[in-house]
Amino acid sequence: MRQVLSGLIDLAARPQQRPQEGPQGQTLNRQLYNELRGAILNGALAPGRRLPSSRELARQLELSRNTVSGVIDQLAMEGYLQVAQGRRPVVAAARPALLRGKPAASGASRAPPLSHWAKRLQKAHWPAVDEGPPRPFQPGLGDAREFPHELWARCLRRAARMAPRRGTQAVNSPPLQAALLKYLVEHRGVRAEARQVIVVPSAQAAIELIARVVLNANDLAWLESPGYSGAAAALEAAGARIVGVPLDASGITIGDRSERPRLIFVTPSHQYPTGRLMPVSRRHELLAFAERAGAIIVEDDYDSEFHYEGRPVAALQGLDESGGVFYVGTFSKSTFADIRLGYVVVPEAYVEIFERAQRHSGQLAALPVQDALAEFIDDGHFAAHIRKMTRLYGERRDRLAHVLKAAAGDFLSVAPPSGGMQLLAYLPRHLDDRDVACRLQHAGITVRSLSHHFTGRIADRGLFLGFAAWNDVEIDTGADMMREALRRLLR
Amino acid sequence: MRQVLSGLIDLAARPQQRPQEGPQGQTLNRQLYNELRGAILNGALAPGRRLPSSRELARQLELSRNTVSGVIDQLAMEGYLQVAQGRRPVVAAARPALLRGKPAASGASRAPPLSHWAKRLQKAHWPAVDEGPPRPFQPGLGDAREFPHELWARCLRRAARMAPRRGTQAVNSPPLQAALLKYLVEHRGVRAEARQVIVVPSAQAAIELIARVVLNANDLAWLESPGYSGAAAALEAAGARIVGVPLDASGITIGDRSERPRLIFVTPSHQYPTGRLMPVSRRHELLAFAERAGAIIVEDDYDSEFHYEGRPVAALQGLDESGGVFYVGTFSKSTFADIRLGYVVVPEAYVEIFERAQRHSGQLAALPVQDALAEFIDDGHFAAHIRKMTRLYGERRDRLAHVLKAAAGDFLSVAPPSGGMQLLAYLPRHLDDRDVACRLQHAGITVRSLSHHFTGRIADRGLFLGFAAWNDVEIDTGADMMREALRRLLR
Repeated sequence: MRQVLSGLIDLAARPQQRPQEGPQGQTLNRQLYNELRGAILNGALAPGRRLPSSRELARQLELSRNTVSGVIDQLAMEGYLQVAQGRRPVVAAARPALLRGKPAASGASRAPPLSHWAKRLQKAHWPAVDEGPPRPFQPGLGDAREFPHELWARCLRRAARMAPRRGTQAVNSPPLQAALLKYLVEHRGVRAEARQVIVVPSAQAAIELIARVVLNANDLAWLESPGYSGAAAALEAAGARIVGVPLDASGITIGDRSERPRLIFVTPSHQYPTGRLMPVSRRHELLAFAERAGAIIVEDDYDSEFHYEGRPVAALQGLDESGGVFYVGTFSKSTFADIRLGYVVVPEAYVEIFERAQRHSGQLAALPVQDALAEFIDDGHFAAHIRKMTRLYGERRDRLAHVLKAAAGDFLSVAPPSGGMQLLAYLPRHLDDRDVACRLQHAGITVRSLSHHFTGRIADRGLFLGFAAWNDVEIDTGADMMREALRRLLR
Repeated sequence: MRQVLSGLIDLAARPQQRPQEGPQGQTLNRQLYNELRGAILNGALAPGRRLPSSRELARQLELSRNTVSGVIDQLAMEGYLQVAQGRRPVVAAARPALLRGKPAASGASRAPPLSHWAKRLQKAHWPAVDEGPPRPFQPGLGDAREFPHELWARCLRRAARMAPRRGTQAVNSPPLQAALLKYLVEHRGVRAEARQVIVVPSAQAAIELIARVVLNANDLAWLESPGYSGAAAALEAAGARIVGVPLDASGITIGDRSERPRLIFVTPSHQYPTGRLMPVSRRHELLAFAERAGAIIVEDDYDSEFHYEGRPVAALQGLDESGGVFYVGTFSKSTFADIRLGYVVVPEAYVEIFERAQRHSGQLAALPVQDALAEFIDDGHFAAHIRKMTRLYGERRDRLAHVLKAAAGDFLSVAPPSGGMQLLAYLPRHLDDRDVACRLQHAGITVRSLSHHFTGRIADRGLFLGFAAWNDVEIDTGADMMREALRRLLR
């Protein structure tokens, strides 16, 4: 067809073929449409140019007259051609001046002007860009290889089959709300009704949504320092003034601060990144302070499923009597990262605005996945997986602590945490942990510097390492690589 | 156990049982922990109260000493008890004053102070609250009953099995980006690289993300009027000044407006809600205007998969040479609503900031679902489903137009659209379409008023009805109910 068309229209002026003009798998109809439209767009068929009649065109192209007429009608409808009864189609004035002599759309011609929000995001330390396949000892990852994908696949399949019978327009799956709440009540001491469980694509989404729903620009927000950078990024993006509050052995120190924060972000059961536990007296002190100050508390219980000594400490949320605690959690650590499911248990008075905000912002999750997870929990697979991984991750914690001591015990001070998926190895204060992390990165090892987690004054130096996602061989090899890199660094 | 504990501690002061205290399925260990913790929290075990020794407690409760010791150690770690070698445990000073005499957490005690953003959302017409199971003729819905859920379930299952071998940390599934782009190039004339395809939970999420990335407070945004309320809500929530631009037969009218909007939101291929087509001359005019004004264009191609006469009109995005068009689409109409997958093809210069914004805000989708959809498209199931539904929806469009004319043709002016999933029936201007929609709602029929879609002056009155999600019987019954309700209304 192209040969015939070439003879018909002046193809010398045609620039490089566009992707949609490739003939593979296209109908004749679509090919002709693309050829003619492309020639009009690139100016090969100039405005005012008169085409042959559809009868003549069909004859030359050896196509049915219906096909040709259909294409011409379509192009006329879209405004590329002008047609009139009994006359040959004419190329319309389609402002070819705009089109000719320009490179194909690349965006390079216009630097993107970004919002303040986007600019703040660009400058934030979080989220990290895609670092490619994960490497030891990137924090925050579980071992997806150990997840019972086959069982999960069956749950997904059953949920997909049930989909046509669902018949609601809920954003949060009621079966998942019920199953998750039962788990949280039993294992975390959470107190709530199922409708307070809001399901979002990640814990980060939960923090973001809370920040947007409760914070205005310049509102004061407290963070633990050191603390979770993702929370800092979300609160900064919401325009909050952030103050990093130092820790003591019991967690965030309220003392006699006279500020009145609007939001307080804490990780009381297993402080991120130090692993410290906030005892109940400090919890009550914090709750009472928040109530007096009119602050809400965001309790991020990010990896409390995994506890190696004794029982996980019950959640702060269960102690609250004033309806001011938002309890945040995630499945991306307890199942596998790509599942993209987090949640927040919101105080009852916030349920309606959160559902509205979810619909509005798109911070919601595929229903079939939510329903599949509800079945996975109800059938006991979730609890069984947690039990299995707690055993495995506990061994990995011990192994990493052991090999790190052997590899660099003279200047890394390793304290195995009582729970979670990562450990903190303190460095002597004269070593710049950011520099160490950067050099390890080049040597093939991913760690985070402790400095990176402070808001305000940097009080300690150390390396934050994930141990959960790697098997024994990977841990040993990673530790060897670290030893070599650290030796070169210290020489 | 409760009986023994009741003797031990003063249970008279205990308030209503908390949910986590239910004994079903709990280990003895957990039961004892909950009983003791609950008694401390509600003040039944007052600060300073000394418990029996763990040996004595174990004897009285007929539990192993290990169990009792473990629970006491746990409560001590959490700060509820004070323990010392050789002494009986003492209840710690846990600020019971805060806890006693208050109702269980209900949130009622603290009215939630909301952000400006949340307050704007509360006032917005969109999103509608959950209206329960969908009823005829709610717009925007496809017929999930006709979706090949069994085929889809198999794709999901295969994707879940492949998950452990994925090994990247990408937020957007590369197979889905490739498969979707191929479809968009072929069927919609989109021009882009696969990495420009950003996958989010809904088209609304895409609009929200664009608004946040490019708009600052008080930036000017143009909307078609009448137009899509969801876009108005997203732009308002981003703090933009919104101006509704009237339509003529070719869509949004630029004319000689001297404003310089920062963003222009359009539905050029099938205007929402009027179904009008923007011809190519107006498209070029719009592109040239946007480039001069420094505006970006958001092209929402929301249900262009379904076209009943001729071919769907190619996308505006494919005409753009300046890198300023964001092409938005959704799978929730072409597959089924609960899949929660939308997308935006962003100009190349925006890819990095969008991926960052996705990670940050949680506007991202489960990878297994993305991968399953890639397979569903690559194997031809998607195109086959679209073909089947186009035939079916075309018949339903004709049927609804026919029965509406029969039922109320004397004052409803019905214009069947050339594509999409809903039709607009104009009303005489003296009838208040909001009132009509409200009365129909009470009569069991869901329609949207045309008035609801205007930003600024209301130029027309009508009813907007979805026809795609209902079978012949449902359409006929719905039309009967409408006729009855309208008759009562007009009497």
